[in-house]
Amino acid sequence: MASASPRRRELLKMIGIRDFTVMPASSEAAYPASLPPDEAVKYIAMCKAESIAPQVGGDSLVIAADTVVCLGGRILEKPSGPEDAKRMLGQLSGRRHTVYTGIALIRGDERISDCAASDVWFRELSSREIDAYVASGQPLDKAGSYGAQDMAALFVERVDGEFWNVVGLPVCRLGQLMASIGEEII
Amino acid sequence: MASASPRRRELLKMIGIRDFTVMPASSEAAYPASLPPDEAVKYIAMCKAESIAPQVGGDSLVIAADTVVCLGGRILEKPSGPEDAKRMLGQLSGRRHTVYTGIALIRGDERISDCAASDVWFRELSSREIDAYVASGQPLDKAGSYGAQDMAALFVERVDGEFWNVVGLPVCRLGQLMASIGEEII
Repeated sequence: MASASPRRRELLKMIGIRDFTVMPASSEAAYPASLPPDEAVKYIAMCKAESIAPQVGGDSLVIAADTVVCLGGRILEKPSGPEDAKRMLGQLSGRRHTVYTGIALIRGDERISDCAASDVWFRELSSREIDAYVASGQPLDKAGSYGAQDMAALFVERVDGEFWNVVGLPVCRLGQLMASIGEEII
Repeated sequence: MASASPRRRELLKMIGIRDFTVMPASSEAAYPASLPPDEAVKYIAMCKAESIAPQVGGDSLVIAADTVVCLGGRILEKPSGPEDAKRMLGQLSGRRHTVYTGIALIRGDERISDCAASDVWFRELSSREIDAYVASGQPLDKAGSYGAQDMAALFVERVDGEFWNVVGLPVCRLGQLMASIGEEII
């Protein structure tokens, strides 16, 4: 698993994958602004997987993922600090945004990738609510400044699409991609 | 909290509610087949809350919830055993169903309730996948024979609506209902 994300690790365990090694990707590939987000996240995920592949055996499967939050054509990354998190949450308030996760798999010479997209609706937030959430520290390490599986669950009125994609790993899509190369999870 | 569900307990903690007492509801109200599911789950939730209310102080807030899985007009309850779970999962395979959760709040003489509905799409499952999931034991205590937050996440292609409703407690809806009576969570 070419990812340092503790959430992705938990999601792999949730679906019964326990025998894996975490190897944080060393790719510093810049986000390709010329590509649409669904293509860009697949590209970044593949760069992460490629950065790990030389270190693993040919039979081992390398899994990498990249998630972005997209609001009205702009990409929201991880916040630079509490004020930036408040600004992003203010932008998300009362609006729909889209979360994209690219998945890339490498096994020997094989390379495949896919992307999941989910629409997310935030209810209207008060500045008091935004301040309280940011003060909890939870949004600071998360793309878009929120976690759909932490206190910000109170903000997420609706998701259309695969839910776990919003948390950072669309596990149903991952399972189907793995099955397509004979690596059934269940 | 008038519920013995460990999942509802975890979800209350997720949204920052830590100071609560679990009191399993003693209501044995039958599912009112004459009502549509969104009304029926509110009714059952209120029966659960009423069964606890006499035991708590007037300032305390009683929260109760009831979740049903609805497939083509029929209600899928908890499975009676492994064979029943396999039968239900076979029915859900490759189809859309709807999950309804009713929430009821009682504080002193106040009573309010609401319902959330989410559509859930399962991908096509093989009998091997169904057997492996049932053998894990995970579906046996769950309405509809699956948990969207356990290995069955591999089966859930898409959710349209509030995700945590599918797990048993629509926390965003709960937060808004609580705020309407001055019990802000955040």
